[in-house]
Amino acid sequence: MHILITGAAGMIGRKLTARLVESGELNGRRIEKLTLIDVSAPQQPAKFAGIVGTFAADISEPALAQAAVAGRPDVIFHLAAIVSGEAELDFEKGVRVNLDASRALLESIRRTGEDYCPRLVFTSSIAVFGAPFPEAIPDDFHLTPLTSYGTQKAIVELLLAEYSRRGFLDGVGIRLPTISVRPGRPNKAASGFFSSIIREPLAGEEAVLPVEDSVTHWHASPRSAIGFLIHAAGLSRKQLGPRVNLTMPGVCCTVAEQIAALRRIAGDKVVARIRRETDPLVARIVDGWPRRFDPQRALALGFKAETSFDDIIRVHIEDELGGKIAV
Amino acid sequence: MHILITGAAGMIGRKLTARLVESGELNGRRIEKLTLIDVSAPQQPAKFAGIVGTFAADISEPALAQAAVAGRPDVIFHLAAIVSGEAELDFEKGVRVNLDASRALLESIRRTGEDYCPRLVFTSSIAVFGAPFPEAIPDDFHLTPLTSYGTQKAIVELLLAEYSRRGFLDGVGIRLPTISVRPGRPNKAASGFFSSIIREPLAGEEAVLPVEDSVTHWHASPRSAIGFLIHAAGLSRKQLGPRVNLTMPGVCCTVAEQIAALRRIAGDKVVARIRRETDPLVARIVDGWPRRFDPQRALALGFKAETSFDDIIRVHIEDELGGKIAV
Repeated sequence: MHILITGAAGMIGRKLTARLVESGELNGRRIEKLTLIDVSAPQQPAKFAGIVGTFAADISEPALAQAAVAGRPDVIFHLAAIVSGEAELDFEKGVRVNLDASRALLESIRRTGEDYCPRLVFTSSIAVFGAPFPEAIPDDFHLTPLTSYGTQKAIVELLLAEYSRRGFLDGVGIRLPTISVRPGRPNKAASGFFSSIIREPLAGEEAVLPVEDSVTHWHASPRSAIGFLIHAAGLSRKQLGPRVNLTMPGVCCTVAEQIAALRRIAGDKVVARIRRETDPLVARIVDGWPRRFDPQRALALGFKAETSFDDIIRVHIEDELGGKIAV
Repeated sequence: MHILITGAAGMIGRKLTARLVESGELNGRRIEKLTLIDVSAPQQPAKFAGIVGTFAADISEPALAQAAVAGRPDVIFHLAAIVSGEAELDFEKGVRVNLDASRALLESIRRTGEDYCPRLVFTSSIAVFGAPFPEAIPDDFHLTPLTSYGTQKAIVELLLAEYSRRGFLDGVGIRLPTISVRPGRPNKAASGFFSSIIREPLAGEEAVLPVEDSVTHWHASPRSAIGFLIHAAGLSRKQLGPRVNLTMPGVCCTVAEQIAALRRIAGDKVVARIRRETDPLVARIVDGWPRRFDPQRALALGFKAETSFDDIIRVHIEDELGGKIAV
């Protein structure tokens, strides 16, 4: 089994690589080769007996997709992307990386030949949806993205379904919830506070909450995200049918419920590190985001997320803090 | 007012040109210039006082989009496309004409400059939808095309919404029903029989019905299609909002109801020219097509279609047969 990961140096890419190396197999087959690509060189995974190729390259370089696919990987995890904020600020860069590079990857697979049909797992996003929304977004709700990032993801979803239908590849698109609690330093994403109001207080630092406590959102842990990717790699063509793009399950909760969960797990002193400071711009952006889904297909296909925000916090404490909280 | 029409030599393009020349104005402004583009040279319209430029060129030629837009047309009707059957048989040609040429047109508009923001009316299709369907397809139903043509149209819809949202142009996408009764000779489209079972008998010729009488479909006349285009050109940005792609109204009826309408209008002798000869391939293709819509937004925005198949037949007799039936 040869696995290719694009965006391998990102948060999800690193966790996915670690999980694959740890288990040593995917879909019941031993992993013999890993090809890891990102703009900055992905780390060489420790304790892996197989062959590892790491490449530092921009996936929007025309020749790269072809080179990456030349080794005929059996499973491709296509994670590489420019994030939402950057795609909005730099239209051409977003199109080049999120749309054209993805298309180049699909085309390289098609041109490799009729006997080559790898499983391609593509990380899409709930940003393919745009307000106004029903109370819970059903699986058959239309895609009306309100960002360039969401548009680019939605177009790749359509291409993925088309290339799968024509037998050029065997695609699955998974629309990730907002990943909470995202490890690492705060970033400038408008969604960053959903993680930082949990992560910083648990680490003994102050965090700013820029929106009302009533704001509702859709979350899953990084551990669940990796679980989605592994599970998607193992689904059969027959299980998927022609509708290959799936909204992933998650936890729907308000900011107030996030904070109540933090209080239950870590106490009042930790919660007191959250400072309220409304940011009208962030509040307005978040207002257009989806809040709740009814992801019946993904659940029926066996995708699993946490069932409470308490569990999401526990996963963060276990996976990132070695079980320790700064009380 | 300068108007550009791509696909101007096609059935819809010719009828649209004739209508524009006849009225001499669009959105209350006098038409001073028409630019007509198609692979085969569009005819010079008679009795038009303004300037006409006709170009025989493949819109997938990279320089053409730029040249077409250089004259800064105020309204662009983008009709040019490879039809469904051909896009399915020739994947690369379909992508080149239906997707890349459309994208080149959008990009040429964007690159013309910030002070240029033309109304772009794009003819999409109900082929953006794929089975299984609810009883009536609502405006917020997801796009899961089951053909390359439908996929290409769906992607251009997403680009049209994105370019409109970013202010690069002012787009409207209209999803045309099956156009019945299509004038001219029978073609090889799987949908051809919906027209030919009416058109040929009215002209004194035999027609073959390849499916069951219970097959249900969504129709509008060529006259209505032109009405949709003209109406779309006049909608304001505010009326449209961010969801710029609209399913057009139509008449939902079974083949049996089509035939009953023909009998009411033209009598038993004409209906007797329909010969039943089941074609399992056509029956299977048609089975995946949408049947009935609930196009609330288009109706609220003032788009109008016929309300019965009787009316659709009458339009054909008036517009194509000079009021005469071969009894």
